[in-house]
Amino acid sequence: MSGLDDTLALVLMESVSGHEDAIAEYVATRLRANPRLEVERIGDNVVARTTGLHKTRLVVAGHLDTVPGDAGTARVEGDAVVGLGACDMKGSLSVMLELATRDVAHSNEVTWVFYAREEIARAQSGLRELLELRPDLLAGDVALLAEPTGGTVEAGCQGSLRVSVTVRGSRAHTARPYMGRNAIHRLGAVLARIAAYTPRTTVVDGVTFTEQLQVVSVDGGVSGNVVPDVAHCVVNHRFAPDRTVGDAVDWLRGYLETTLDETDVVDLDDWAPAAAPAMDNEHLRSLVGLSGRTVRAKVGWTDVATFQEMGIPATNFGAGNPLLAHHPNERVTADELAEFSRVLGAWIS
Amino acid sequence: MSGLDDTLALVLMESVSGHEDAIAEYVATRLRANPRLEVERIGDNVVARTTGLHKTRLVVAGHLDTVPGDAGTARVEGDAVVGLGACDMKGSLSVMLELATRDVAHSNEVTWVFYAREEIARAQSGLRELLELRPDLLAGDVALLAEPTGGTVEAGCQGSLRVSVTVRGSRAHTARPYMGRNAIHRLGAVLARIAAYTPRTTVVDGVTFTEQLQVVSVDGGVSGNVVPDVAHCVVNHRFAPDRTVGDAVDWLRGYLETTLDETDVVDLDDWAPAAAPAMDNEHLRSLVGLSGRTVRAKVGWTDVATFQEMGIPATNFGAGNPLLAHHPNERVTADELAEFSRVLGAWIS
Repeated sequence: MSGLDDTLALVLMESVSGHEDAIAEYVATRLRANPRLEVERIGDNVVARTTGLHKTRLVVAGHLDTVPGDAGTARVEGDAVVGLGACDMKGSLSVMLELATRDVAHSNEVTWVFYAREEIARAQSGLRELLELRPDLLAGDVALLAEPTGGTVEAGCQGSLRVSVTVRGSRAHTARPYMGRNAIHRLGAVLARIAAYTPRTTVVDGVTFTEQLQVVSVDGGVSGNVVPDVAHCVVNHRFAPDRTVGDAVDWLRGYLETTLDETDVVDLDDWAPAAAPAMDNEHLRSLVGLSGRTVRAKVGWTDVATFQEMGIPATNFGAGNPLLAHHPNERVTADELAEFSRVLGAWIS
Repeated sequence: MSGLDDTLALVLMESVSGHEDAIAEYVATRLRANPRLEVERIGDNVVARTTGLHKTRLVVAGHLDTVPGDAGTARVEGDAVVGLGACDMKGSLSVMLELATRDVAHSNEVTWVFYAREEIARAQSGLRELLELRPDLLAGDVALLAEPTGGTVEAGCQGSLRVSVTVRGSRAHTARPYMGRNAIHRLGAVLARIAAYTPRTTVVDGVTFTEQLQVVSVDGGVSGNVVPDVAHCVVNHRFAPDRTVGDAVDWLRGYLETTLDETDVVDLDDWAPAAAPAMDNEHLRSLVGLSGRTVRAKVGWTDVATFQEMGIPATNFGAGNPLLAHHPNERVTADELAEFSRVLGAWIS
């Protein structure tokens, strides 16, 4: 198993999104020490593949980057590494590196993918860069994304979309508001409608997904004595894999319909598709068996959706508590690393 | 009477708030041509007083400045001056100048006040500057503020206050909003409460005032996938002269109470008191009689409140349609100027 020290070394390396050069070089160097791997570095992404003749190829992927913050205070505290990136996802990366460089025969071919820029806009993701420049490196029968899942297989992922809602009115002096129409007052009805949303739950492949709807920003106003003629909010919707992006946008437009006029505008700003659990795949079912725990739905979006777009069934499984990702108290324990190493090692061999 | 050409000349002079030097000098020069006036320039304010021994002193005041905009396109169009500042309040100023420099005996002493910076923050007003530096120049028994009122005496004025409402929540990932509390969703309830406000009307000194409550700006949001922990709005309340600023703030806090928590904050940002109609004053009643029209409440705040604070009963009466102030189609007609000149001339003499 990978020790806490290996994880701490990775946590202490500079790796904020867009600054993965050094950690990518470190990872590539360690992987190249294993002569049974073909290692390629594409930008700040590193892919290492076994070169045997087994008929099945498993892809194990993790991102190198972290969100911004102070990783310099990271430390071993008791049986845990504490610090930014500990569970999201340097712990899983250190296990991946240890298994990839171990001198053990596999019963499957394995592709190890270490990619850049996962924590920022999807368009800048290193995984998408690989998909564009070298899709051959990502080919495989099934994929595991080593995001922190607390040792439980978290299947599929929610889709996510962001829409801008622009509500119109007309200006007037605030002493004579009846000469105009207050766009912020109108926006109040939109906010109230969203606040009143009851999450929809739905079961896909035996896994229960819960949708969410949240306003993430709001703005509007002209000056202190003017009835504002425009107000604006941004809404984030997390949707289950039984809906496409188009389905989810249509549902959201319908949900807001009673609060909007013809002059108001709903714009789709950003979106990412959901991914189904793919629990019909034998390798993923075997992973669930090895984990010894009941599969559950992934809350949030992950790159399992990117693999699904490539036609590769994928799931989330990694070391560390997902609720501690990006949290001031982010950590990963020796037990979590050992358990992840045990299950992943058994799965690939 | 003052002609359209005199008004146009004033409209074409640079006079955006804070840039009244040239127009103040022009006004002072014209007033000094009348040997019966004592003229003083204090900053960009000009005060001219008759020096007779009549027992009553009437104060006639108007502001020299305009809001920003393009006054360079001003012109005479048919029987009207069209352009920024035509009715607010270069038309009234031209009549004041004409009456002040006319060689006619009055039966009252008259103080003509031309002041700077009325269209910006109250703390910067030239009238307050005079009040601080030379209160003796503003002394009088009654005051008329020549804001545009369409030839009708508009009595008193509404008070105005602006409060900031800050609503708290707690952050969470938008995929797990139940781990936090969305402050923008909470703000929706505040906006809805304000949008549902029914204006209070009240009769003071026989004049009906209608209050107003408007949200003038809103902001909040952290990032596209974070449940926001704080949201904010600014509310403008216009209140009748039967309430003090303190009364109005108390009422507003009470009105919003059901939508706010202990951690939320309501801050008073800015305020201006209301002014009662002072219709018990014989000079103001006589002005109403001369106008030949029924007195009505002033909608909006004016410096009649400043005179009232000095203990001087005051009212609004001037040339031009108040609804056209700051309007792209701002204008004042020859008939409006003539009518204002007739009533004001009769009042002072």
